[in-house]
Amino acid sequence: MPAGLFINHGGAFLRRFARIPNSGSPWKCAFCLTRDGKALKVQRTIFSECFYVMAMDELARVTGDKDMQAEAAQMMDQLVHWVRVDPSGLGKPQLSGDTPVCSMAVPMMLLCLVQQLTEARSGEEVDKYREVGGWCVKQILQHLQRGGTAILESVSSEGKELPGCAGRLQNPGHALEAGWFLLQYGLENGDQELQRTAVDKFMEIPFLTGWDKEHGGLLYFLDVDGYCPTQLEWSMKLWWPHCEALIAYLMAYSHTKEPALLERFSQVYDYTFSHFSDAENGEWFGYLTQQGKVTLDFKGGPFKGFFHVPRCLYMCEKILDSILNKQES
Amino acid sequence: MPAGLFINHGGAFLRRFARIPNSGSPWKCAFCLTRDGKALKVQRTIFSECFYVMAMDELARVTGDKDMQAEAAQMMDQLVHWVRVDPSGLGKPQLSGDTPVCSMAVPMMLLCLVQQLTEARSGEEVDKYREVGGWCVKQILQHLQRGGTAILESVSSEGKELPGCAGRLQNPGHALEAGWFLLQYGLENGDQELQRTAVDKFMEIPFLTGWDKEHGGLLYFLDVDGYCPTQLEWSMKLWWPHCEALIAYLMAYSHTKEPALLERFSQVYDYTFSHFSDAENGEWFGYLTQQGKVTLDFKGGPFKGFFHVPRCLYMCEKILDSILNKQES
Repeated sequence: MPAGLFINHGGAFLRRFARIPNSGSPWKCAFCLTRDGKALKVQRTIFSECFYVMAMDELARVTGDKDMQAEAAQMMDQLVHWVRVDPSGLGKPQLSGDTPVCSMAVPMMLLCLVQQLTEARSGEEVDKYREVGGWCVKQILQHLQRGGTAILESVSSEGKELPGCAGRLQNPGHALEAGWFLLQYGLENGDQELQRTAVDKFMEIPFLTGWDKEHGGLLYFLDVDGYCPTQLEWSMKLWWPHCEALIAYLMAYSHTKEPALLERFSQVYDYTFSHFSDAENGEWFGYLTQQGKVTLDFKGGPFKGFFHVPRCLYMCEKILDSILNKQES
Repeated sequence: MPAGLFINHGGAFLRRFARIPNSGSPWKCAFCLTRDGKALKVQRTIFSECFYVMAMDELARVTGDKDMQAEAAQMMDQLVHWVRVDPSGLGKPQLSGDTPVCSMAVPMMLLCLVQQLTEARSGEEVDKYREVGGWCVKQILQHLQRGGTAILESVSSEGKELPGCAGRLQNPGHALEAGWFLLQYGLENGDQELQRTAVDKFMEIPFLTGWDKEHGGLLYFLDVDGYCPTQLEWSMKLWWPHCEALIAYLMAYSHTKEPALLERFSQVYDYTFSHFSDAENGEWFGYLTQQGKVTLDFKGGPFKGFFHVPRCLYMCEKILDSILNKQES
């Protein structure tokens, strides 16, 4: 089957089955479907819907399908409504002990969508997204805490540190991913201060705190005060933080030309390709022990899909090409 | 403060705050409360409510509080209704891809409650619970699959193996815990066949498949066909399966006097007390790497409470006393 047809089959499947109209909101998407399109799991977060926007918009770019593009735009409006106005449509019951928590994942994903929806486009719609983008950047910067020495995964709605272990949680891979989102946004908008913050804070801090000096690789979770995180997998090495680190350091190097950033890229590269990449059967393993031993040997699983690895390889190759082209010219 | 007063304070706190009437059902309990009793998390399962029954009933035994006892009985009725008649009050939305799945945890917990509510009691109420107990035993036995060679964590509502990795999942600690629940029930009801199944299947199979021959200790999850489980923590050693194993093998030995079972107890004991028990600061660590290194160093956390360790130590001491007393007499 030609690749184009195959892609359209995927798109048609998503359009037909991804949204679960009887789940409370007509825009809520399934996290997981059966092969024949029946919903198996619906999360009460925004992330399935974010990936739906990415899929619909990118596919509309390739196929020129206006209807698909409109679907992406409408879902984006819904996402912004859930995040900035009223989350009740996500289906999470309100509890008396709930304190509003800002998770860095939310503005990060929205910023990623803003970049998807505005790339090489202009017009009124794009201005609307740019406003959202500015809001996302402000939100992400709230996670830079403790006088600019730590990136915390969750903060209060006033942008303050939360009490307890939830407030102390650090996710180095997430900070690095936010780093290259911010750098890209800073470059697109000519914001040099944001570019510096992206590199000096969101890329440097997670390396200093998250790189395992004894065994190499990035730890999955850390407590900012050095206590043990409560997540069972905190000391494991996961593939995706390493993907995000490779993109972050290479993008930062290509714009700053600071040798230290190329050195970071090279260090992450060496660990990644000697530990995650499967020389024998292709693709990457996803999960290693702290010591670097493969502990889950499948290539795809409930949370490891065809996303971080191809995005990383594609982006790194593009950045490397641009570095080489500049050197030649 | 005298212990009695302290206990009653705990009971009063639970009665006042544990149930979350505005969560869809007046009987739904919080999984987690703030210090001042506000709900932080409500699970869409039956387990918080099961522990509520245990707490209310046991406290009613100690204090003689009839009202608390009635509360436990009413909650038990509600639990049986959710499990055997209609689960919709638990708040889980119905999805088109849902296939009814029987998780061994559900009849296990109910059987544990039946034992709590019937121990040293008689009368009409107790007969009602005994019927529930019989149903639980039948349900648990459905998890003995593949011609009696494997205990699978989840099966279909017809008691058949489910497709995919969910169907292949084994949880050795759970099987061992079910083992001593079944043995206890078999002893109470003079059912010798059930006693043998409990020991030969629910205690022996998880040891043969779940004991780590290289590093010692019980693995957390296994795939019955030898594939890698999808749970990130599958190869870790957790405290609670070892607690349940200690109770299971000692209880089985005390009734059968088979030296092999004492040998199992001794092997689990040696691993447990040399790895989990904290000689310096007391209590047990909860989470080790496959190699046996403490990887989460807290004594209490979101899922490690004051339950498995004291139950294990208390029950093992009682069983050891009874063995010694019999030898003396």
